[in-house]
Amino acid sequence: MSRSINLAVIPGDGIGKEVVAQGLKVLSAVLPQDVKLETKNYDLGAARWHRTGETLPDAELEALKGHDAILLGAIGDPSVPSGVLERGLLLKLRFAFDHYVNLRPSKLFPNTDTPLAGRPDIDFVVVREGTEGPYTGNGGSLRTGTPAEVATEVSLNTAYGVERVVRDAYERADSRPRKKLTLVHKNNVLVYAGHMWKNIFDRVGREYPEVTTDYLHVDAATIFFVTQPERFDVIVTDNLFGDILTDLAAAVTGGIGLAASANINPDRTFPSMFEPVHGSAPDIAGQGKADPTATILSVALLLRHLGFDAEAGRVEEAVAADLAGRSTTTRTTDEIGDALAVRVAG
Amino acid sequence: MSRSINLAVIPGDGIGKEVVAQGLKVLSAVLPQDVKLETKNYDLGAARWHRTGETLPDAELEALKGHDAILLGAIGDPSVPSGVLERGLLLKLRFAFDHYVNLRPSKLFPNTDTPLAGRPDIDFVVVREGTEGPYTGNGGSLRTGTPAEVATEVSLNTAYGVERVVRDAYERADSRPRKKLTLVHKNNVLVYAGHMWKNIFDRVGREYPEVTTDYLHVDAATIFFVTQPERFDVIVTDNLFGDILTDLAAAVTGGIGLAASANINPDRTFPSMFEPVHGSAPDIAGQGKADPTATILSVALLLRHLGFDAEAGRVEEAVAADLAGRSTTTRTTDEIGDALAVRVAG
Ligand SMILES: CC(C)[C@H](C(=O)O)[C@@H](O)C(=O)O
Ligand SMILES: CC(C)[C@H](C(=O)O)[C@@H](O)C(=O)O
Repeated sequence: MSRSINLAVIPGDGIGKEVVAQGLKVLSAVLPQDVKLETKNYDLGAARWHRTGETLPDAELEALKGHDAILLGAIGDPSVPSGVLERGLLLKLRFAFDHYVNLRPSKLFPNTDTPLAGRPDIDFVVVREGTEGPYTGNGGSLRTGTPAEVATEVSLNTAYGVERVVRDAYERADSRPRKKLTLVHKNNVLVYAGHMWKNIFDRVGREYPEVTTDYLHVDAATIFFVTQPERFDVIVTDNLFGDILTDLAAAVTGGIGLAASANINPDRTFPSMFEPVHGSAPDIAGQGKADPTATILSVALLLRHLGFDAEAGRVEEAVAADLAGRSTTTRTTDEIGDALAVRVAG
Repeated sequence: MSRSINLAVIPGDGIGKEVVAQGLKVLSAVLPQDVKLETKNYDLGAARWHRTGETLPDAELEALKGHDAILLGAIGDPSVPSGVLERGLLLKLRFAFDHYVNLRPSKLFPNTDTPLAGRPDIDFVVVREGTEGPYTGNGGSLRTGTPAEVATEVSLNTAYGVERVVRDAYERADSRPRKKLTLVHKNNVLVYAGHMWKNIFDRVGREYPEVTTDYLHVDAATIFFVTQPERFDVIVTDNLFGDILTDLAAAVTGGIGLAASANINPDRTFPSMFEPVHGSAPDIAGQGKADPTATILSVALLLRHLGFDAEAGRVEEAVAADLAGRSTTTRTTDEIGDALAVRVAG
């Protein structure tokens, strides 16, 4: 375990800056005294693009490689055409750093405002594939803007890419008490990709005899997310289905203000990246209204990835305790960060 | 308005037969005396496939064209490889009969078991594109079953196909009291198809100055389905997103037992097809446990499509009244059908 962390920070846009500041506050507070935390800010996002037209220059991509991990706030602003920052920055990072495991845990914390509050324990994790599927940017448009336009989007799936993420998901399921893994796809319609996913899922599964498996079509899965989320333990799914399901998961388990995510390169060839699932929320930016909890829970995932398991646990316990004690008084972004920093330090 | 209905009936598999019987019962009960209802059964689905290897022979496809409409129960059985009946029968019908408007209304009926019960009125309709997108069957797999396999799924989108469904959705929005239309896509990632959808949506919108418009990414839309479904009036979306969102819509508004759908060919070149959103539910088939309400509400959509507006309204009112009066005593499929038949006749 390294006793120093060389962290890249991409605050990004809107509330990104505000929540990242709290994430760093809690990170500093929880780390053992002898661990040196070095951070370097990268000015990337909407403002940079407006100023220079750049989304992620090669030099910065290169520099980011030298870090142990990346903490990202949020990227995006309505003033930038849709897709420019997503494809040119956020997805570019996920693809360049081969973040093939996009990990998104969902837990029903106490005292949270959700239509499912009071339901049996919900505690599952979505392992979303991060480097393939409909996210590869493969597609095009012909006769753009005319009545004869044709536009395509190609979902690219490889046995190589599917097997590694499926294997990661089995490992995670095998290490959890319930040992259950659900594959979500749509193999009754997307028969080529769907059957490949299912075949690999079944084949790899033979190496994990203790893991119970299940398959659901993505449409049916959304129903169970609402009516029976406690049936899930680990879910493995494609990049796009994972995107959709994890926002839904956030909605049913306490809101997008609590949803953390990790973009992991398990091979550790490249730094992994940690970010809240929520966006830059320009409507509430700069007002101290953003809930930094999702970022702070992402910091817990970062700590665990870097081997600081006890510290990760402390952050998660602090969040649980903080949520359990939340009153109806609204606190500012800063106040929530302070409260959590105090808890993890104490 | 024609005073006879020549209806094709595809009961299909599992509970399909049971719910279709109730749909026909209510249809007969609600139709004016002078309307002649002729029905012809088509034996299609899992049993037929097991017996003959056929999914939808050309002769039957041809014969179906002669009907005024099609009522379908449910297709699918675990004994048939995933995709065979979906692609070979259900989707084949939707594509062959150019069902480009897949209409799925969601309404929060009184007394329904949903996490959102007691919320403000939910009453929206999803206009799902039915003949394009990732559903075209365009794709393939190379080196199938080997570690070097590559599988693709191509989403095909044409300005022709998008404009006609978008226009249909504007017409519907314009005729409703709230006059609001939301486009759901993922144009920050699926930039080719997404931008085409958005551009066409904006351009056609200029012809409907009274309709308020909105755009949501599909992941964000799932959140609003749970937290704020009352914000929606009419939603227009792609084939796959529509598939996912309408199951979710059913889950939040009373369950899949109530979700009706219409596969409409607005040009009336081919018969339109009406079916519950739910599947064949083999686990409860033959036990009289299936709720036929979704099929009966699909019959209401069928009636409206054929110009029997008053009768359609009577069916919907009967369902609302029946649900409002539902006690905790469970009724059989048949009993629910009987109760509704009595209500529409009375
Ligand atoms: C912003 C967008 C590109 C991104 C995605 O679709 O993956 C986001 O929705 C997420 O889930 O991290
Ligand atoms: C059975 C399947 C092919 C179908 C679809 O994906 O459209 C179903 O889920 C639906 O929503 O009608």
